[in-house]
Amino acid sequence: MHVPGLSQERIVKIEQDILGKNDGLARTNRRRLAEKGVFALNLVSSPGSGKTTLLVRTLTDLKERHPITVIEGDQQTSNDADRIRATGVAAIQVNTGKGCHLDASMVGHALDDLDPAANSLLFIENVGNLVCPAAFDLGEAHKVVVLSVTEGEDKPLKYPDMFAASDLMLLNKADLLPHLDFDVAACIAAARRVNPRLEVLTVSARSGEGMDAFYAWIEARAALARRPV
Amino acid sequence: MHVPGLSQERIVKIEQDILGKNDGLARTNRRRLAEKGVFALNLVSSPGSGKTTLLVRTLTDLKERHPITVIEGDQQTSNDADRIRATGVAAIQVNTGKGCHLDASMVGHALDDLDPAANSLLFIENVGNLVCPAAFDLGEAHKVVVLSVTEGEDKPLKYPDMFAASDLMLLNKADLLPHLDFDVAACIAAARRVNPRLEVLTVSARSGEGMDAFYAWIEARAALARRPV
Repeated sequence: MHVPGLSQERIVKIEQDILGKNDGLARTNRRRLAEKGVFALNLVSSPGSGKTTLLVRTLTDLKERHPITVIEGDQQTSNDADRIRATGVAAIQVNTGKGCHLDASMVGHALDDLDPAANSLLFIENVGNLVCPAAFDLGEAHKVVVLSVTEGEDKPLKYPDMFAASDLMLLNKADLLPHLDFDVAACIAAARRVNPRLEVLTVSARSGEGMDAFYAWIEARAALARRPV
Repeated sequence: MHVPGLSQERIVKIEQDILGKNDGLARTNRRRLAEKGVFALNLVSSPGSGKTTLLVRTLTDLKERHPITVIEGDQQTSNDADRIRATGVAAIQVNTGKGCHLDASMVGHALDDLDPAANSLLFIENVGNLVCPAAFDLGEAHKVVVLSVTEGEDKPLKYPDMFAASDLMLLNKADLLPHLDFDVAACIAAARRVNPRLEVLTVSARSGEGMDAFYAWIEARAALARRPV
């Protein structure tokens, strides 16, 4: 961060304070989730990548198989939590106001209210932003970055921190590929330059294409997190 | 901003310091641009809204009629400046690293290098981000928010600061409308709830639809900024 009139040392110290406090609270969240066998994903992306639609479809398809709760982050409105609750899944909306990301403290407070069941799934939909949420651990098992194929192949190179911080990339809106000049292989190559271990699934939350592979990815990892009740 | 472990008062003071310094430098930029009759637009949007493609088309169509320079902001890469320079227009790439927006200091330094001609157009393409760039005046005449129709109608309500800070909204990628469930009227209504004076143009940088109206918008305002040489 470059801030005119504030010394670089002062800025670095403030950033370290902020991230250090956040990391401590994220560790607390992670321990708390592990004790109950709750498997948590932190969904990150640009605005408009289709995270909420993807989540609504996921909940609809998985809610009979697992207890699920959702934390929704947005600058303003409760639109997304309303859409989630319409599926019958409990959701808490966090409004960040001027803020560009959720932090571990917000998630900790939301967990107090949600009280997720043992061996359940927790989806955290972050504020739509390819920069800020990368630096903030919330205590999740994995960050999942959702990239819409309408956004262009070069996004992983232009916003590398987010793709480096994520374990899975969902290339969403694949149903639109016939109408776009989007090179899937080039996008995956760009993402792997930033993060060679990044897993990739091509999906369409609208048509359902590829969603079963995403569910299998989730369920294999959630099984490992499970605890005896 | 909510930061665990830092008092709200301290955070507010730091934010005020940052924005106060930025506003002072933005005023300097604005005066400097006005003295030379340079008309500057600050293009803001989510990642992948098509800002660079829109800009490349705009430069191609306007470069014979006006001297033009460009400042490109991205976390990483010089991809966008390379695309701009391929049109023959001079461009400077600013990499913000961890930062989620350009600031007035970065733009001031870029102006030192670019030295825009009298009575020219200056396009500043900000970092793709619907949150952070809203608060940072760069000295531009207008913020222009580009929203892709692939992003959903509700974005102005979920990211209100950006739409409140902008004078024009370009609804881009209109060529994809036949393939989407996007309600143009609902999107415009959402944007006008946040900013009743917001002007709106529907465009496609790919097909060229609506671009002439954008050029007319630019040229009418640039004419008012012109100075005797």
